[in-house]
Amino acid sequence: MNLPPHITIRHDHLWIGEHDTVELARTWGTPLYVTDQDRIEACYMACRDALSAEYPRVRILYAAKANGNLAVLRALAALGAGADVFSSGELHLALAAGMQPGTLLFNGSSKSRSDLALAVERGVPVSVDSFDELGQLEAVAAAAGKTARIAFRVNPAIDVPTHPKIATGLATSKFGIAHHLIPTAYREALSCAHIDPVGIHCHIGSQILDVEPFARACEVMMKIVREITGMGVRLEFVDLGGGLGIPYHRGEGERSPNPADYARAVIPLFRQGIREAGISPELWIEPGRSLVADSTLLLAGVNSVKPAHRNFVNVDAGFNLLVRPAMYDSWHEVIAANRAGQERKVTCTVAGPICESGDILAHDRLLPELAAGDLIAVLDAGAYGFAMSSQYNSRPRCPEIILKGRSAALMRRGEDIGDLIRTMETPPWQERGR
Amino acid sequence: MNLPPHITIRHDHLWIGEHDTVELARTWGTPLYVTDQDRIEACYMACRDALSAEYPRVRILYAAKANGNLAVLRALAALGAGADVFSSGELHLALAAGMQPGTLLFNGSSKSRSDLALAVERGVPVSVDSFDELGQLEAVAAAAGKTARIAFRVNPAIDVPTHPKIATGLATSKFGIAHHLIPTAYREALSCAHIDPVGIHCHIGSQILDVEPFARACEVMMKIVREITGMGVRLEFVDLGGGLGIPYHRGEGERSPNPADYARAVIPLFRQGIREAGISPELWIEPGRSLVADSTLLLAGVNSVKPAHRNFVNVDAGFNLLVRPAMYDSWHEVIAANRAGQERKVTCTVAGPICESGDILAHDRLLPELAAGDLIAVLDAGAYGFAMSSQYNSRPRCPEIILKGRSAALMRRGEDIGDLIRTMETPPWQERGR
Repeated sequence: MNLPPHITIRHDHLWIGEHDTVELARTWGTPLYVTDQDRIEACYMACRDALSAEYPRVRILYAAKANGNLAVLRALAALGAGADVFSSGELHLALAAGMQPGTLLFNGSSKSRSDLALAVERGVPVSVDSFDELGQLEAVAAAAGKTARIAFRVNPAIDVPTHPKIATGLATSKFGIAHHLIPTAYREALSCAHIDPVGIHCHIGSQILDVEPFARACEVMMKIVREITGMGVRLEFVDLGGGLGIPYHRGEGERSPNPADYARAVIPLFRQGIREAGISPELWIEPGRSLVADSTLLLAGVNSVKPAHRNFVNVDAGFNLLVRPAMYDSWHEVIAANRAGQERKVTCTVAGPICESGDILAHDRLLPELAAGDLIAVLDAGAYGFAMSSQYNSRPRCPEIILKGRSAALMRRGEDIGDLIRTMETPPWQERGR
Repeated sequence: MNLPPHITIRHDHLWIGEHDTVELARTWGTPLYVTDQDRIEACYMACRDALSAEYPRVRILYAAKANGNLAVLRALAALGAGADVFSSGELHLALAAGMQPGTLLFNGSSKSRSDLALAVERGVPVSVDSFDELGQLEAVAAAAGKTARIAFRVNPAIDVPTHPKIATGLATSKFGIAHHLIPTAYREALSCAHIDPVGIHCHIGSQILDVEPFARACEVMMKIVREITGMGVRLEFVDLGGGLGIPYHRGEGERSPNPADYARAVIPLFRQGIREAGISPELWIEPGRSLVADSTLLLAGVNSVKPAHRNFVNVDAGFNLLVRPAMYDSWHEVIAANRAGQERKVTCTVAGPICESGDILAHDRLLPELAAGDLIAVLDAGAYGFAMSSQYNSRPRCPEIILKGRSAALMRRGEDIGDLIRTMETPPWQERGR
């Protein structure tokens, strides 16, 4: 199995970093998200070093939507990361984690007036997604007596081999402005009194396992860079977005391009483009999944087993905690954490506790023989895991712990019934007789 | 358009009950869930009356997962409803709303030991999903010195025309015990010292628009009822589950069977079955969607519009608040709430603010010409709406208000950034320098 270096099997147990998952489950209970901070730091530094080797003026903006826990943001901020933020909430969290406003980019195709006002107030650059938004931002900045630093989000119309729901660079996606309209957009921005177009931005999608689409997107972008530079736009940054995938199919030995592969495929095209344009902007990149996905396991306890038309292994975590398998038919590797060295001889379907037939974490996987009380680890749960969790079926969400060397600590406590009802209010006409 | 009676268009505005949605949005902000308590009560009473007309001993167990807000549960409890609960959380909420333990059924294919212990402690009947669970429940009840009242969940192997992820009665679903093993299960239950098999249970799926599958499931169930009664099982209830659909495609005039259609198709078969078995148990039914879905609108404000390959109407609610379109390709009717009387002449795609191409609430719908500041109403959002919501993209969840006659009140306040970080903890090694 193609396991990342921090995931090991020792004496029949699955370990993450310096921790036995069986001990972690005993200490903290299940279900449990377990994140290895050391692994996130290693991934960040590998990315930064690979990019910097090809071009010195690189900035990494972590895609905060992948995992917005402050402990994760703080670890990345301490290493110099900025963030791609997609909401006012993500902006607040990134600043709270110690990131500087100028190292953030406020992205999104549907920002409210208050989102725009917050970005202007805090001095966070905005990726503008439409002409309508440009006009609104000009008005908001004028009202605040400030200048908004912006990029435009380019729709490069690149056909990307990934799940259609996360292929954001397609001509048919909701994101960005069609590339042939981009020069017009910059011309309009240059005419705005309170807008300063200092960057350009694209993002072609997520979980992409081939560097070639990134190279093609870079070519489209550099053509535009040359054109708008000629129009008088002074670019301080070119943001090529994120999207590098990870090898979820670990049992089948899937591989993914590493940051060095990406850098070698993309940055020469970038360097050539800026040389031809006669500028030397920063290069911004927005990795999310590739920095945090494999840092994290979701541990789930086995509640019961049911031999039926499938061998169901019923566990205590379902799509309330990890929606990707149910929503995108995503594959996550599953390991019997307390029997990790045993022969995988039973074909099992790992099912969650949610009241939907689609609540299956893993279909037809070879696992050791299992019983109630055993422990399942779902790998690569660090990106779009807890971040997409819900309280569906009135299930309080589980804790998240974070590891650093031999230490382990909560980065989010588990919820209880009080957390389910905290925001509920009783309408006055239901008060009588209570 | 086939609108339910509490949804009307008056002077160009969309109304719900006695309330102008434009005024509600002005008062409470957007996004906003709006639920009409009068409509829920009317749906409940129509269901109860239609069933009772065919068989007097009927109990309605509301499927709490559809909408677990206490205000909804309280309204139904006051009318005599019980609940189908799927977790310890739902059990606590149902009791808090005033429902009696004996009117609940604890369902689910993956219950933990603590779930079983809670059911035993509170005297809530359990729908047992496997032989493994039966053994665990016997041990839990013995340890508590109590007797657990149970039903078995039958997998009737009925092929149901609905979305495969919610077709729970298929032979291939994770739910229930295959019908040919059910007599063995009751025999085993009869031999347990702390188990009292008092019921039988099935549920064939959700959003079913034809009564015929319910009739077929009833036939399967009554055959088993006769057999196990002959074995000495004394059934106090037969629970035929829920699943009646609603006409989401209102613009196309879709219709759904009403409770009377259901009662006429199913209850004669039930009556014949119990007559042949020589018993007169209660008939339990578990409606969810058909009681609450159309009671509720999701109101969303238009942030911007973008004419591109599609006419994008970018709104402030996405799949963080209503996941059904993104997850199940579900259709929800969409109305321009402040231009409800105007000609629908522009084909629009209503897109949410989430960073995924799949965050589209409605594809290619005819709507009036719209601009920032306009108001969109998403219909039939009362079931599996807020219940499945998340804080994805670090977006605080919106408020829910409830209406009763001319009154309106919060049944859940809106979240803020504090609610996003409330459960986060700082690991000790990140404390330095903060």
